[in-house]
Amino acid sequence: MLELLSEHACFGGVQRFYRHDAQAIGLPMRFSVFIPAGAQDAKADKKHPALFYLAGLTCTEETFMIKGGAQRVAAEEGLVLIAPDTSPRGANIAGESESWDFGAGAGFYVDATEAPWSSHYRMYSYLLELRTLLVQELGIDPQRTGIFGHSMGGHGALVLALRNPHLFRSVSAFAPIAAPSQCAWGKKAFTGYLGSDESSWQKYDASALVRSRQGKQPLFPNGILIDQGLADKFLPEQLFPEVFEAACCDANQPLQLRRHAGYDHGYYFIATFMEEHLRFHARNLR
Amino acid sequence: MLELLSEHACFGGVQRFYRHDAQAIGLPMRFSVFIPAGAQDAKADKKHPALFYLAGLTCTEETFMIKGGAQRVAAEEGLVLIAPDTSPRGANIAGESESWDFGAGAGFYVDATEAPWSSHYRMYSYLLELRTLLVQELGIDPQRTGIFGHSMGGHGALVLALRNPHLFRSVSAFAPIAAPSQCAWGKKAFTGYLGSDESSWQKYDASALVRSRQGKQPLFPNGILIDQGLADKFLPEQLFPEVFEAACCDANQPLQLRRHAGYDHGYYFIATFMEEHLRFHARNLR
Repeated sequence: MLELLSEHACFGGVQRFYRHDAQAIGLPMRFSVFIPAGAQDAKADKKHPALFYLAGLTCTEETFMIKGGAQRVAAEEGLVLIAPDTSPRGANIAGESESWDFGAGAGFYVDATEAPWSSHYRMYSYLLELRTLLVQELGIDPQRTGIFGHSMGGHGALVLALRNPHLFRSVSAFAPIAAPSQCAWGKKAFTGYLGSDESSWQKYDASALVRSRQGKQPLFPNGILIDQGLADKFLPEQLFPEVFEAACCDANQPLQLRRHAGYDHGYYFIATFMEEHLRFHARNLR
Repeated sequence: MLELLSEHACFGGVQRFYRHDAQAIGLPMRFSVFIPAGAQDAKADKKHPALFYLAGLTCTEETFMIKGGAQRVAAEEGLVLIAPDTSPRGANIAGESESWDFGAGAGFYVDATEAPWSSHYRMYSYLLELRTLLVQELGIDPQRTGIFGHSMGGHGALVLALRNPHLFRSVSAFAPIAAPSQCAWGKKAFTGYLGSDESSWQKYDASALVRSRQGKQPLFPNGILIDQGLADKFLPEQLFPEVFEAACCDANQPLQLRRHAGYDHGYYFIATFMEEHLRFHARNLR
Protein backbone atom coordinates (compact mmCIF):
# COMPACT_ATOMS: atom_id res chain seq x y z
CA MET A 1 0.00 0.00 0.00
CA LEU A 2 2.70 2.46 1.07
CA GLU A 3 6.04 2.33 -0.74
CA LEU A 4 8.84 3.58 1.50
CA LEU A 5 11.19 5.69 -0.64
CA SER A 6 13.67 6.80 2.00
CA GLU A 7 14.15 6.98 5.72
CA HIS A 8 16.38 9.13 7.93
CA ALA A 9 16.89 9.15 11.67
CA CYS A 10 15.89 12.59 12.98
CA PHE A 11 15.54 13.94 16.53
CA GLY A 12 15.26 10.45 17.97
CA GLY A 13 12.45 9.57 15.56
CA VAL A 14 12.39 8.91 11.86
CA GLN A 15 11.83 11.05 8.78
CA ARG A 16 10.25 9.03 5.97
CA PHE A 17 9.23 9.64 2.37
CA TYR A 18 6.52 7.48 0.86
CA ARG A 19 4.78 6.94 -2.47
CA HIS A 20 1.35 5.37 -2.89
CA ASP A 21 -1.42 5.00 -5.47
CA ALA A 22 -3.90 7.74 -4.62
CA GLN A 23 -7.44 6.80 -5.57
CA ALA A 24 -8.80 10.33 -5.51
CA ILE A 25 -6.02 11.45 -7.83
CA GLY A 26 -5.69 8.38 -10.05
CA LEU A 27 -1.92 8.72 -9.96
CA PRO A 28 0.90 7.90 -7.58
CA MET A 29 1.42 10.58 -4.94
CA ARG A 30 4.33 11.25 -2.61
CA PHE A 31 4.19 12.43 0.96
CA SER A 32 6.54 12.75 3.90
CA VAL A 33 6.08 11.75 7.52
CA PHE A 34 8.01 12.50 10.66
CA ILE A 35 7.37 9.88 13.32
CA PRO A 36 8.63 10.64 16.81
CA ALA A 37 10.25 7.98 18.96
CA GLY A 38 7.73 5.57 20.38
CA ALA A 39 5.19 6.14 17.61
CA GLN A 40 6.76 3.91 14.97
CA ASP A 41 4.78 0.78 15.69
CA ALA A 42 1.29 1.00 14.22
CA LYS A 43 0.26 -1.86 16.48
CA ALA A 44 1.28 -0.04 19.65
CA ASP A 45 -1.43 0.48 22.21
CA LYS A 46 -0.85 4.20 22.37
CA LYS A 47 -1.87 6.02 19.21
CA HIS A 48 -0.18 9.32 18.55
CA PRO A 49 -1.69 12.64 17.54
CA ALA A 50 -0.89 13.75 14.01
CA LEU A 51 -0.59 17.09 12.31
CA PHE A 52 -0.95 17.59 8.56
CA TYR A 53 0.99 20.43 6.94
CA LEU A 54 -0.08 21.77 3.56
CA ALA A 55 2.61 23.65 1.66
CA GLY A 56 2.34 26.61 -0.66
CA LEU A 57 2.75 27.27 -4.37
CA THR A 58 5.70 25.54 -6.08
CA CYS A 59 6.46 23.39 -3.01
CA THR A 60 6.58 19.61 -2.68
CA GLU A 61 6.23 17.02 0.06
CA GLU A 62 9.85 17.75 0.97
CA THR A 63 9.70 21.50 1.58
CA PHE A 64 8.24 21.52 5.07
CA MET A 65 10.45 18.73 6.36
CA ILE A 66 13.62 20.46 5.10
CA LYS A 67 12.83 24.09 5.86
CA GLY A 68 10.22 24.14 8.61
CA GLY A 69 12.39 23.10 11.54
CA ALA A 70 9.39 21.31 13.03
CA GLN A 71 10.78 17.90 13.96
CA ARG A 72 12.44 18.99 17.20
CA VAL A 73 9.24 20.12 18.87
CA ALA A 74 7.17 17.36 17.25
CA ALA A 75 9.57 14.87 18.85
CA GLU A 76 9.09 16.57 22.24
CA GLU A 77 5.31 16.61 21.90
CA GLY A 78 4.95 13.13 20.41
CA LEU A 79 3.30 14.57 17.29
CA VAL A 80 3.39 12.74 13.95
CA LEU A 81 3.90 15.23 11.12
CA ILE A 82 2.55 14.56 7.63
CA ALA A 83 3.21 16.66 4.53
CA PRO A 84 1.61 15.80 1.19
CA ASP A 85 2.65 17.14 -2.20
CA THR A 86 0.92 20.28 -3.47
CA SER A 87 -0.68 18.83 -6.60
CA PRO A 88 -0.90 15.71 -8.73
CA ARG A 89 2.30 15.04 -10.68
CA GLY A 90 2.49 13.61 -14.16
CA ALA A 91 -1.15 14.13 -15.08
CA ASN A 92 0.09 15.16 -18.53
CA ILE A 93 -2.44 17.91 -18.98
CA ALA A 94 -1.53 20.52 -21.58
CA GLY A 95 -0.29 23.67 -19.88
CA GLU A 96 0.03 21.91 -16.53
CA SER A 97 3.53 23.24 -15.91
CA GLU A 98 3.29 26.62 -17.62
CA SER A 99 2.25 28.63 -14.56
CA TRP A 100 3.80 28.60 -11.14
CA ASP A 101 0.42 29.47 -9.61
CA PHE A 102 -1.84 27.00 -11.44
CA GLY A 103 -1.51 23.32 -12.31
CA ALA A 104 1.50 21.33 -11.12
CA GLY A 105 2.64 22.55 -7.71
CA ALA A 106 -0.55 24.58 -7.36
CA GLY A 107 -3.45 22.19 -6.74
CA PHE A 108 -5.09 24.61 -4.27
CA TYR A 109 -6.50 21.66 -2.30
CA VAL A 110 -9.76 21.64 -4.27
CA ASP A 111 -11.60 18.94 -6.23
CA ALA A 112 -11.59 20.29 -9.77
CA THR A 113 -14.88 20.05 -11.61
CA GLU A 114 -13.71 21.56 -14.88
CA ALA A 115 -12.15 19.43 -17.64
CA PRO A 116 -9.34 18.57 -18.11
CA TRP A 117 -8.39 19.17 -14.45
CA SER A 118 -11.27 17.20 -12.97
CA SER A 119 -9.71 13.87 -13.96
CA HIS A 120 -6.78 14.16 -11.52
CA TYR A 121 -6.76 17.48 -9.66
CA ARG A 122 -8.76 16.36 -6.64
CA MET A 123 -6.52 17.38 -3.77
CA TYR A 124 -9.39 18.03 -1.35
CA SER A 125 -10.62 14.45 -1.52
CA TYR A 126 -7.04 13.24 -1.61
CA LEU A 127 -6.29 14.80 1.75
CA LEU A 128 -9.25 13.02 3.33
CA GLU A 129 -8.14 9.77 1.68
CA LEU A 130 -4.59 10.24 2.95
CA ARG A 131 -5.80 10.87 6.49
CA THR A 132 -7.88 7.68 6.47
CA LEU A 133 -5.00 5.73 4.98
CA LEU A 134 -2.55 6.88 7.63
CA VAL A 135 -4.95 6.14 10.45
CA GLN A 136 -4.86 2.55 9.13
CA GLU A 137 -1.25 2.24 8.04
CA LEU A 138 0.66 4.37 10.54
CA GLY A 139 -1.67 4.07 13.48
CA ILE A 140 -2.21 7.78 13.97
CA ASP A 141 -5.02 8.61 16.37
CA PRO A 142 -8.20 9.41 14.40
CA GLN A 143 -9.49 11.38 17.39
CA ARG A 144 -6.44 13.63 17.44
CA THR A 145 -5.49 14.99 14.04
CA GLY A 146 -4.90 18.63 13.30
CA ILE A 147 -3.94 20.56 10.18
CA PHE A 148 -1.94 23.64 9.29
CA GLY A 149 -0.26 25.14 6.29
CA HIS A 150 1.35 28.07 4.53
CA SER A 151 -0.07 30.45 1.94
CA MET A 152 -1.99 28.23 -0.53
CA GLY A 153 -1.58 25.52 2.09
CA GLY A 154 -2.88 27.81 4.81
CA HIS A 155 -5.99 28.25 2.66
CA GLY A 156 -6.17 24.47 2.27
CA ALA A 157 -5.79 23.84 6.00
CA LEU A 158 -8.49 26.34 6.95
CA VAL A 159 -10.91 24.91 4.37
CA LEU A 160 -10.25 21.27 5.26
CA ALA A 161 -10.71 22.01 8.96
CA LEU A 162 -13.77 24.24 8.65
CA ARG A 163 -15.52 21.63 6.51
CA ASN A 164 -14.35 18.66 8.59
CA PRO A 165 -14.04 19.80 12.19
CA HIS A 166 -14.81 16.23 13.32
CA LEU A 167 -11.68 15.05 11.47
CA PHE A 168 -9.33 17.97 12.07
CA ARG A 169 -9.67 19.11 15.65
CA SER A 170 -7.08 21.88 15.53
CA VAL A 171 -6.13 24.33 12.78
CA SER A 172 -3.59 27.09 12.21
CA ALA A 173 -1.92 28.83 9.30
CA PHE A 174 1.07 30.89 8.25
CA ALA A 175 0.17 33.73 5.89
CA PRO A 176 -2.83 31.92 4.42
CA ILE A 177 -4.70 32.92 1.29
CA ALA A 178 -7.58 33.71 3.56
CA ALA A 179 -10.23 34.92 1.12
CA PRO A 180 -9.31 33.23 -2.18
CA SER A 181 -12.50 34.25 -3.99
CA GLN A 182 -11.30 37.85 -3.74
CA CYS A 183 -7.63 37.65 -4.80
CA ALA A 184 -5.91 37.05 -8.13
CA TRP A 185 -4.36 33.72 -7.16
CA GLY A 186 -7.68 32.36 -5.93
CA LYS A 187 -9.72 33.70 -8.84
CA LYS A 188 -7.33 32.13 -11.35
CA ALA A 189 -7.30 28.79 -9.54
CA PHE A 190 -11.03 28.62 -8.85
CA THR A 191 -11.97 29.69 -12.37
CA GLY A 192 -9.65 27.06 -13.80
CA TYR A 193 -10.53 24.22 -11.47
CA LEU A 194 -14.16 25.03 -10.57
CA GLY A 195 -15.46 27.20 -13.39
CA SER A 196 -16.72 30.75 -13.50
CA ASP A 197 -19.81 30.27 -11.32
CA GLU A 198 -18.58 31.88 -8.13
CA SER A 199 -21.18 30.15 -6.00
CA SER A 200 -19.17 26.95 -6.47
CA TRP A 201 -16.15 28.70 -4.95
CA GLN A 202 -17.69 29.36 -1.56
CA LYS A 203 -17.03 25.94 -0.09
CA TYR A 204 -13.33 26.47 -0.77
CA ASP A 205 -13.16 29.98 0.67
CA ALA A 206 -12.26 30.03 4.37
CA SER A 207 -13.75 33.48 4.93
CA ALA A 208 -17.03 32.49 3.27
CA LEU A 209 -17.13 29.25 5.24
CA VAL A 210 -16.68 31.05 8.56
CA ARG A 211 -19.19 33.72 7.64
CA SER A 212 -21.78 31.03 6.88
CA ARG A 213 -21.54 29.99 10.53
CA GLN A 214 -23.04 33.23 11.84
CA GLY A 215 -25.42 32.55 14.70
CA LYS A 216 -24.09 29.03 15.26
CA GLN A 217 -21.62 27.66 17.78
CA PRO A 218 -18.01 28.20 16.72
CA LEU A 219 -16.41 25.13 15.18
CA PHE A 220 -13.12 25.73 16.97
CA PRO A 221 -13.93 27.10 20.41
CA ASN A 222 -10.22 26.99 21.37
CA GLY A 223 -9.54 29.33 18.50
CA ILE A 224 -7.71 29.39 15.20
CA LEU A 225 -4.11 30.61 15.13
CA ILE A 226 -2.76 32.62 12.18
CA ASP A 227 0.65 34.28 11.90
CA GLN A 228 1.17 36.95 9.26
CA GLY A 229 4.31 38.90 8.42
CA LEU A 230 3.79 42.58 7.71
CA ALA A 231 6.70 42.69 5.22
CA ASP A 232 5.04 39.92 3.21
CA LYS A 233 4.87 41.22 -0.37
CA PHE A 234 1.74 39.14 -1.02
CA LEU A 235 -0.15 40.56 1.94
CA PRO A 236 -1.82 43.56 0.29
CA GLU A 237 -3.26 41.82 -2.77
CA GLN A 238 -3.41 38.07 -2.22
CA LEU A 239 -3.84 37.09 1.42
CA PHE A 240 -6.61 39.25 2.99
CA PRO A 241 -6.33 38.02 6.59
CA GLU A 242 -8.47 41.02 7.57
CA VAL A 243 -11.39 39.55 5.61
CA PHE A 244 -11.05 36.29 7.51
CA GLU A 245 -10.68 38.21 10.75
CA ALA A 246 -13.92 40.10 10.12
CA ALA A 247 -15.72 36.87 9.26
CA CYS A 248 -14.49 35.24 12.47
CA CYS A 249 -15.63 38.26 14.42
CA ASP A 250 -19.10 38.13 12.85
CA ALA A 251 -19.39 34.39 13.50
CA ASN A 252 -17.97 34.49 17.04
CA GLN A 253 -15.17 32.16 15.94
CA PRO A 254 -12.20 32.84 18.24
CA LEU A 255 -9.15 33.80 16.19
CA GLN A 256 -5.63 34.69 17.20
CA LEU A 257 -4.30 36.64 14.21
CA ARG A 258 -0.79 37.80 15.02
CA ARG A 259 0.79 40.43 12.80
CA HIS A 260 4.60 40.49 12.85
CA ALA A 261 6.52 43.57 11.74
CA GLY A 262 9.41 42.86 9.40
CA TYR A 263 8.61 39.24 8.51
CA ASP A 264 8.10 38.19 4.90
CA HIS A 265 6.36 35.27 3.18
CA GLY A 266 9.19 32.72 3.33
CA TYR A 267 10.39 29.88 5.49
CA TYR A 268 12.60 32.08 7.69
CA PHE A 269 9.28 33.57 8.87
CA ILE A 270 7.61 30.17 9.14
CA ALA A 271 10.49 28.56 11.05
CA THR A 272 10.45 31.47 13.52
CA PHE A 273 6.88 30.77 14.61
CA MET A 274 6.82 27.00 14.00
CA GLU A 275 7.32 26.06 17.62
CA GLU A 276 4.33 28.10 18.77
CA HIS A 277 2.10 26.46 16.18
CA LEU A 278 3.21 22.99 17.21
CA ARG A 279 2.62 23.76 20.90
CA PHE A 280 -0.81 25.19 20.00
CA HIS A 281 -1.80 22.01 18.19
CA ALA A 282 -0.33 19.75 20.85
CA ARG A 283 -2.46 21.53 23.47
CA ASN A 284 -5.59 21.26 21.35
CA LEU A 285 -5.01 17.57 20.62
CA ARG A 286 -4.21 16.59 24.20
CA MET B 1 32.37 46.37 -0.10
CA LEU B 2 29.47 44.06 0.78
CA GLU B 3 26.52 43.91 -1.59
CA LEU B 4 23.34 42.94 0.24
CA LEU B 5 21.39 40.55 -2.01
CA SER B 6 18.46 39.76 0.25
CA GLU B 7 17.31 40.06 3.82
CA HIS B 8 14.68 38.19 5.84
CA ALA B 9 13.49 38.66 9.40
CA CYS B 10 14.18 35.44 11.29
CA PHE B 11 13.86 34.57 15.01
CA GLY B 12 13.92 38.22 16.00
CA GLY B 13 17.14 38.80 14.06
CA VAL B 14 17.90 38.98 10.38
CA GLN B 15 18.98 36.46 7.75
CA ARG B 16 21.07 38.11 5.05
CA PHE B 17 22.71 37.05 1.81
CA TYR B 18 25.69 39.02 0.56
CA ARG B 19 28.02 39.14 -2.45
CA HIS B 20 31.50 40.69 -2.43
CA ASP B 21 34.68 40.74 -4.48
CA ALA B 22 36.93 38.18 -2.85
CA GLN B 23 40.60 39.03 -3.25
CA ALA B 24 41.86 35.52 -2.47
CA ILE B 25 39.54 34.09 -5.11
CA GLY B 26 39.69 36.85 -7.72
CA LEU B 27 35.96 36.48 -8.29
CA PRO B 28 32.76 37.57 -6.58
CA MET B 29 31.72 35.25 -3.76
CA ARG B 30 28.42 34.88 -1.94
CA PHE B 31 27.90 34.17 1.71
CA SER B 32 25.04 34.19 4.20
CA VAL B 33 24.84 35.67 7.67
CA PHE B 34 22.35 35.32 10.49
CA ILE B 35 22.54 38.25 12.84
CA PRO B 36 20.65 37.96 16.12
CA ALA B 37 18.68 40.85 17.58
CA GLY B 38 20.94 43.44 19.12
CA ALA B 39 23.94 42.55 16.96
CA GLN B 40 22.90 44.41 13.83
CA ASP B 41 24.74 47.62 14.51
CA ALA B 42 28.44 47.25 13.69
CA LYS B 43 29.09 50.36 15.74
CA ALA B 44 27.49 48.96 18.87
CA ASP B 45 29.67 48.81 21.93
CA LYS B 46 29.04 45.15 22.46
CA LYS B 47 30.59 42.97 19.81
CA HIS B 48 29.01 39.58 19.26
CA PRO B 49 30.65 36.19 19.00
CA ALA B 50 30.48 34.62 15.54
CA LEU B 51 30.45 31.09 14.27
CA PHE B 52 31.49 30.10 10.74
CA TYR B 53 29.84 27.07 9.18
CA LEU B 54 31.50 25.29 6.25
CA ALA B 55 29.18 23.14 4.16
CA GLY B 56 29.84 19.91 2.34
CA LEU B 57 30.10 18.77 -1.27
CA THR B 58 27.52 20.24 -3.71
CA CYS B 59 26.26 22.75 -1.14
CA THR B 60 26.11 26.53 -1.33
CA GLU B 61 26.00 29.46 1.07
CA GLU B 62 22.26 28.82 1.39
CA THR B 63 22.25 25.17 2.50
CA PHE B 64 23.04 25.65 6.18
CA MET B 65 20.67 28.55 6.66
CA ILE B 66 17.76 26.64 5.09
CA LYS B 67 18.35 23.15 6.43
CA GLY B 68 20.41 23.48 9.61
CA GLY B 69 17.76 24.88 11.92
CA ALA B 70 20.46 26.88 13.68
CA GLN B 71 18.96 30.36 13.90
CA ARG B 72 16.71 29.69 16.89
CA VAL B 73 19.54 28.82 19.26
CA ALA B 74 21.90 31.37 17.70
CA ALA B 75 19.29 34.01 18.49
CA GLU B 76 19.11 32.80 22.10
CA GLU B 77 22.90 32.73 22.47
CA GLY B 78 23.56 36.00 20.62
CA LEU B 79 25.74 34.19 18.08
CA VAL B 80 26.30 35.57 14.58
CA LEU B 81 26.27 32.71 12.04
CA ILE B 82 28.25 32.94 8.81
CA ALA B 83 28.15 30.44 5.94
CA PRO B 84 30.35 30.88 2.86
CA ASP B 85 29.93 29.10 -0.46
CA THR B 86 31.82 25.83 -0.97
CA SER B 87 33.99 26.89 -3.93
CA PRO B 88 34.61 29.69 -6.36
CA ARG B 89 31.85 30.08 -8.94
CA GLY B 90 32.33 31.03 -12.56
CA ALA B 91 36.08 30.42 -12.71
CA ASN B 92 35.46 28.96 -16.17
CA ILE B 93 38.01 26.20 -15.78
CA ALA B 94 37.55 23.26 -18.16
CA GLY B 95 35.99 20.33 -16.30
CA GLU B 96 35.07 22.50 -13.32
CA SER B 97 31.49 21.24 -13.19
CA GLU B 98 31.99 17.67 -14.39
CA SER B 99 32.44 16.07 -10.95
CA TRP B 100 30.28 16.55 -7.90
CA ASP B 101 33.31 15.91 -5.68
CA PHE B 102 35.89 18.17 -7.35
CA GLY B 103 35.79 21.70 -8.75
CA ALA B 104 32.62 23.78 -8.41
CA GLY B 105 30.87 23.01 -5.11
CA ALA B 106 33.93 21.08 -3.93
CA GLY B 107 36.69 23.55 -3.11
CA PHE B 108 37.82 21.51 -0.08
CA TYR B 109 38.87 24.70 1.71
CA VAL B 110 42.45 24.50 0.39
CA ASP B 111 44.65 26.93 -1.54
CA ALA B 112 45.27 25.13 -4.83
CA THR B 113 48.85 25.17 -6.03
CA GLU B 114 48.26 23.23 -9.25
CA ALA B 115 47.27 24.96 -12.49
CA PRO B 116 44.61 25.72 -13.59
CA TRP B 117 42.99 25.59 -10.12
CA SER B 118 45.57 27.77 -8.39
CA SER B 119 44.28 30.93 -10.08
CA HIS B 120 40.94 30.92 -8.22
CA TYR B 121 40.53 27.88 -5.96
CA ARG B 122 41.96 29.42 -2.80
CA MET B 123 39.23 28.76 -0.28
CA TYR B 124 41.59 28.46 2.69
CA SER B 125 42.87 32.00 2.28
CA TYR B 126 39.39 33.14 1.38
CA LEU B 127 38.02 32.02 4.74
CA LEU B 128 40.65 34.05 6.58
CA GLU B 129 39.91 37.03 4.34
CA LEU B 130 36.19 36.69 4.98
CA ARG B 131 36.73 36.54 8.73
CA THR B 132 38.81 39.72 8.68
CA LEU B 133 36.27 41.44 6.46
CA LEU B 134 33.36 40.62 8.74
CA VAL B 135 35.22 41.76 11.83
CA GLN B 136 35.41 45.12 10.06
CA GLU B 137 32.07 45.24 8.30
CA LEU B 138 29.71 43.46 10.66
CA GLY B 139 31.48 44.16 13.92
CA ILE B 140 31.87 40.53 14.98
CA ASP B 141 34.18 40.07 17.94
CA PRO B 142 37.66 39.04 16.71
CA GLN B 143 38.35 37.49 20.11
CA ARG B 144 35.31 35.26 19.90
CA THR B 145 34.98 33.45 16.60
CA GLY B 146 34.50 29.72 16.21
CA ILE B 147 34.09 27.40 13.26
CA PHE B 148 32.25 24.21 12.43
CA GLY B 149 31.13 22.32 9.39
CA HIS B 150 29.83 19.15 7.77
CA SER B 151 31.67 16.46 5.82
CA MET B 152 34.03 18.36 3.47
CA GLY B 153 33.20 21.40 5.58
CA GLY B 154 33.96 19.49 8.78
CA HIS B 155 37.40 18.83 7.32
CA GLY B 156 37.69 22.51 6.48
CA ALA B 157 36.64 23.62 9.94
CA LEU B 158 39.09 21.31 11.70
CA VAL B 159 41.96 22.40 9.44
CA LEU B 160 41.19 26.11 9.72
CA ALA B 161 40.95 25.87 13.50
CA LEU B 162 43.99 23.66 14.05
CA ARG B 163 46.14 25.99 11.95
CA ASN B 164 44.64 29.19 13.37
CA PRO B 165 43.67 28.54 16.98
CA HIS B 166 44.26 32.21 17.76
CA LEU B 167 41.55 33.11 15.22
CA PHE B 168 39.08 30.28 15.76
CA ARG B 169 38.74 29.62 19.46
CA SER B 170 36.18 26.83 19.23
CA VAL B 171 35.73 24.03 16.70
CA SER B 172 33.30 21.20 16.03
CA ALA B 173 32.16 19.07 13.11
CA PHE B 174 29.39 16.85 11.82
CA ALA B 175 30.67 13.73 10.05
CA PRO B 176 33.92 15.39 8.92
CA ILE B 177 36.32 13.99 6.35
CA ALA B 178 38.73 13.53 9.21
CA ALA B 179 41.75 12.04 7.46
CA PRO B 180 41.47 13.27 3.87
CA SER B 181 44.91 12.05 2.82
CA GLN B 182 43.66 8.51 3.30
CA CYS B 183 40.25 8.53 1.57
CA ALA B 184 39.17 8.67 -2.07
CA TRP B 185 37.50 12.10 -1.82
CA GLY B 186 40.57 13.63 -0.21
CA LYS B 187 43.09 11.94 -2.51
CA LYS B 188 41.22 13.14 -5.58
CA ALA B 189 40.89 16.68 -4.27
CA PHE B 190 44.43 16.98 -2.93
CA THR B 191 46.00 15.46 -6.05
CA GLY B 192 44.02 17.86 -8.21
CA TYR B 193 44.48 21.00 -6.15
CA LEU B 194 47.87 20.34 -4.50
CA GLY B 195 49.65 17.85 -6.74
CA SER B 196 50.86 14.33 -6.15
CA ASP B 197 53.51 15.13 -3.52
CA GLU B 198 51.69 13.94 -0.43
CA SER B 199 53.87 15.96 1.91
CA SER B 200 52.03 19.05 0.67
CA TRP B 201 48.76 17.48 1.81
CA GLN B 202 49.63 17.29 5.49
CA LYS B 203 48.77 20.86 6.36
CA TYR B 204 45.24 20.21 5.09
CA ASP B 205 44.79 16.92 6.92
CA ALA B 206 43.22 17.34 10.37
CA SER B 207 44.53 14.01 11.63
CA ALA B 208 48.08 14.80 10.50
CA LEU B 209 47.84 18.28 12.01
CA VAL B 210 46.78 16.95 15.40
CA ARG B 211 49.39 14.19 15.32
CA SER B 212 52.10 16.80 14.70
CA ARG B 213 51.21 18.29 18.09
CA GLN B 214 52.40 15.26 20.07
CA GLY B 215 54.22 16.36 23.21
CA LYS B 216 52.86 19.92 23.03
CA GLN B 217 50.00 21.57 24.87
CA PRO B 218 46.64 20.85 23.24
CA LEU B 219 45.38 23.67 21.03
CA PHE B 220 41.81 23.27 22.25
CA PRO B 221 41.96 22.37 25.93
CA ASN B 222 38.14 22.57 26.17
CA GLY B 223 37.96 19.85 23.55
CA ILE B 224 36.77 19.35 20.01
CA LEU B 225 33.22 18.10 19.43
CA ILE B 226 32.42 15.69 16.58
CA ASP B 227 29.10 13.97 15.90
CA GLN B 228 29.05 10.98 13.57
CA GLY B 229 26.08 8.89 12.43
CA LEU B 230 26.66 5.15 12.32
CA ALA B 231 24.27 4.68 9.38
CA ASP B 232 26.29 7.19 7.35
CA LYS B 233 27.10 5.45 4.07
CA PHE B 234 30.31 7.45 3.73
CA LEU B 235 31.61 6.45 7.15
CA PRO B 236 33.53 3.28 6.25
CA GLU B 237 35.53 4.62 3.31
CA GLN B 238 35.61 8.42 3.38
CA LEU B 239 35.39 9.87 6.87
CA PHE B 240 37.78 7.96 9.21
CA PRO B 241 36.87 9.64 12.50
CA GLU B 242 38.76 6.81 14.24
CA VAL B 243 42.00 8.06 12.67
CA PHE B 244 41.37 11.53 14.02
CA GLU B 245 40.38 10.05 17.38
CA ALA B 246 43.66 8.12 17.61
CA ALA B 247 45.63 11.24 16.66
CA CYS B 248 43.85 13.27 19.35
CA CYS B 249 44.57 10.54 21.88
CA ASP B 250 48.28 10.50 20.96
CA ALA B 251 48.48 14.29 21.15
CA ASN B 252 46.44 14.65 24.36
CA GLN B 253 43.92 16.77 22.46
CA PRO B 254 40.58 16.36 24.25
CA LEU B 255 37.95 15.12 21.82
CA GLN B 256 34.29 14.33 22.27
CA LEU B 257 33.51 11.98 19.38
CA ARG B 258 29.90 10.90 19.66
CA ARG B 259 28.71 7.98 17.55
CA HIS B 260 24.95 7.89 16.91
CA ALA B 261 23.24 4.67 15.88
CA GLY B 262 20.83 5.03 12.97
CA TYR B 263 21.82 8.49 11.78
CA ASP B 264 23.00 9.08 8.20
CA HIS B 265 25.06 11.79 6.49
CA GLY B 266 22.29 14.30 5.77
CA TYR B 267 20.75 17.38 7.29
CA TYR B 268 18.15 15.46 9.29
CA PHE B 269 21.16 14.19 11.26
CA ILE B 270 22.80 17.61 11.38
CA ALA B 271 19.65 19.41 12.51
CA THR B 272 19.19 16.85 15.30
CA PHE B 273 22.51 17.75 16.92
CA MET B 274 22.74 21.40 15.86
CA GLU B 275 21.59 22.81 19.18
CA GLU B 276 24.29 20.97 21.11
CA HIS B 277 26.99 22.28 18.77
CA LEU B 278 25.74 25.83 19.13
CA ARG B 279 25.64 25.57 22.93
CA PHE B 280 29.15 24.08 22.88
CA HIS B 281 30.51 26.99 20.86
CA ALA B 282 28.60 29.56 22.89
CA ARG B 283 30.18 28.18 26.08
CA ASN B 284 33.66 28.19 24.55
CA LEU B 285 33.26 31.75 23.25
CA ARG B 286 31.84 33.14 26.45
